[in-house]
Amino acid sequence: MTTTTKTDFNDLLSTRAKIGRQPVGTIANSTPTAQPPLYAFGGGNPDPASFPLKGLAEATNQMLEKEGAASLLYGDPLGYSALRDLIVHKYELFEGLKVDRDNIIIANGSGAALGLAFSAFVDVGDYIISESPTFSGTLGAIRRHGPIVLDAPVDQEGIDTDVVRQHLEDLRRQGKKCKLIYTIVNFQNPSGPTQSLRRRKELVKLAQDYDTLILEDDAYGELRFDGEQHPSLYALDDSGSVIRAGTLSKILGAGVRLGWLCAPKDMIPVFQSFNFGGGVNPFMSRIAVYFMRDNLKSHVELLINVYREKRDAMLKGLWEVLEGTDVEISKPEGGFFIWIKLPTGTDTKKLFQLTSEARVQIVPGSSFYPNGGGERHIRLAYSYESPEKCYEGAKLVGQAIRGAMS
Amino acid sequence: MTTTTKTDFNDLLSTRAKIGRQPVGTIANSTPTAQPPLYAFGGGNPDPASFPLKGLAEATNQMLEKEGAASLLYGDPLGYSALRDLIVHKYELFEGLKVDRDNIIIANGSGAALGLAFSAFVDVGDYIISESPTFSGTLGAIRRHGPIVLDAPVDQEGIDTDVVRQHLEDLRRQGKKCKLIYTIVNFQNPSGPTQSLRRRKELVKLAQDYDTLILEDDAYGELRFDGEQHPSLYALDDSGSVIRAGTLSKILGAGVRLGWLCAPKDMIPVFQSFNFGGGVNPFMSRIAVYFMRDNLKSHVELLINVYREKRDAMLKGLWEVLEGTDVEISKPEGGFFIWIKLPTGTDTKKLFQLTSEARVQIVPGSSFYPNGGGERHIRLAYSYESPEKCYEGAKLVGQAIRGAMS
Repeated sequence: MTTTTKTDFNDLLSTRAKIGRQPVGTIANSTPTAQPPLYAFGGGNPDPASFPLKGLAEATNQMLEKEGAASLLYGDPLGYSALRDLIVHKYELFEGLKVDRDNIIIANGSGAALGLAFSAFVDVGDYIISESPTFSGTLGAIRRHGPIVLDAPVDQEGIDTDVVRQHLEDLRRQGKKCKLIYTIVNFQNPSGPTQSLRRRKELVKLAQDYDTLILEDDAYGELRFDGEQHPSLYALDDSGSVIRAGTLSKILGAGVRLGWLCAPKDMIPVFQSFNFGGGVNPFMSRIAVYFMRDNLKSHVELLINVYREKRDAMLKGLWEVLEGTDVEISKPEGGFFIWIKLPTGTDTKKLFQLTSEARVQIVPGSSFYPNGGGERHIRLAYSYESPEKCYEGAKLVGQAIRGAMS
Repeated sequence: MTTTTKTDFNDLLSTRAKIGRQPVGTIANSTPTAQPPLYAFGGGNPDPASFPLKGLAEATNQMLEKEGAASLLYGDPLGYSALRDLIVHKYELFEGLKVDRDNIIIANGSGAALGLAFSAFVDVGDYIISESPTFSGTLGAIRRHGPIVLDAPVDQEGIDTDVVRQHLEDLRRQGKKCKLIYTIVNFQNPSGPTQSLRRRKELVKLAQDYDTLILEDDAYGELRFDGEQHPSLYALDDSGSVIRAGTLSKILGAGVRLGWLCAPKDMIPVFQSFNFGGGVNPFMSRIAVYFMRDNLKSHVELLINVYREKRDAMLKGLWEVLEGTDVEISKPEGGFFIWIKLPTGTDTKKLFQLTSEARVQIVPGSSFYPNGGGERHIRLAYSYESPEKCYEGAKLVGQAIRGAMS
């Protein structure tokens, strides 16, 4: 064969592929550290010490004995039916929410589930509304679909519904559609607040009044340490306007990659049509079901205590060092993250250099803003490290902040 | 809350979602049977009797003991590195092909892997070339991306490269691009032929000359019973024009949902950017690696014997009944499928009614044609049922065909 010129595939890329070329993932874009990190406060990895390794080994053995062959065949394109039933059970158990198996479609983690929703509704150049800041992993999937993202700020009650209304009104006046509103209702990632009941009702009403959809992301809802649980947007809606995403990543393990959408039944086939391949993880789904059907409530109760202790340890370490500055530190009622507004005059470049030297991974606030911003913020995950390391590492972060203040 | 009108989400759907609404899957669209099927000759499910259930249970236990926590954290967005290494090893072992870990990205089965390639290169309204007939599951993913598909027929040497050249020439004359050429090189699904070496070289040359890409699908290559193995298109190309898809579905189990693309290194980040979420199946990937690293060659050798026996049993049953008609029956050198051109005058409606009554699932030929056709064909999978049932069921199909001949 003759040697030919190397093909330049760039001319052949799809429009969506051409929109930026940086890889996306659900792991937040953590700062590098000088040596391997000693304090991994970057991505939202779950607590390794509470992984039910023995339980999963037993579940696998049982599952293979009882329905081994079925686990190695192609699966239901909507997902393993008993996993969909487990999710139905989970909603009932933790929220008293009644949904049906036919409202659920399984995907390869909630990142992929959100991807199905964007694929189903978003064309390049469409408008969507998103909280700003919002989860960096989802921003990756959003960018890959090419919409124009209209920012809605988040305050102590969650998404600012006045701003949402204004955006919807502006679009309507211009004859344009808002395809969906993306919101994280509990322990908003990264900024922390739980959306108030008042705001939830307003948001649902806005979606209904302006003929748009809400994409409600709730990866952490069961992991509530304090405060009041409110009904989900999905529960508050009676018009088929809400699509809700969930995951086993935070209550079983991120490595199982089992997430889902819960949505009006007639939308499910649309999502399915973007879920290419022969059913999502029949083998893994069965292991998860065999373990969780007997352990769901007790395992979640255990995790709530684990993460509350870590949150408190991290907050203690931060306040011990930063008391007296004008720092603002979130105290989330659950979930994995603390959001920090740095004291006035903090040199963030110097801060990242100091945390790198101290081998502490953190995430720059700018990772979370659809249209820029966040330069005065950082996010810390307390989920992965032990309470002791959360406390120690938080003090190191506090000292780095002090060292970066002019 | 007041009851509002039900939201009509149809107005909000993306362009891709609006293109047809039928669900897609890798399971071919089998004919229904009057009672639950006794002979499942529809989808390409692997042989359940040879699933290594005990080996997988042991692999899971070992894996959890050695690296349990890592298996439950988010994974490398390109896939578990040891799985990528296993694929590198597989190519070397069975084909003497040398690739690098950095040429491989893991996806949730090869259906999802092919989806990454279409997402990266295909916009609605773009042109691609595909074999006609081709795999129905891929046709679903293709349709969801909205290209215009130009048909290339398949003969005993595989894809007709003269027709491919003509399409490329026509497009060039019109100032249009061909985004990619989709081809199944070994035991073409559904029609059976292995692409000849001559055609392979021509096809690669065409892609190079016309500045387009080849998407080479090879789910079955290792499962060769007879005939000569040729180098892959990927191996024949020196210009970065070939993307190759593979899967563990046929050599380990479809339920593990682990497939991949093997591609020029600089394309991998583009595919990754459409692989939303925190790494594909870290848990399942480890189980697969722990089992396959010690058993790859021996397990594939076992499977070759299993599937050869089934193919021969099905062919025997078919010919016993259909000898003397002008039926045409493929004899694939490997893989899972037999393709039948029905005798002149067969009433396919009556045929499907008779196979339904006999509780035999088959797939109508029309499922495999991008732009219509295939009314005189059916596809049978011998992969799932025992050799005895392949033989019996094939005779029933033969009798149904005879019964439907006018």
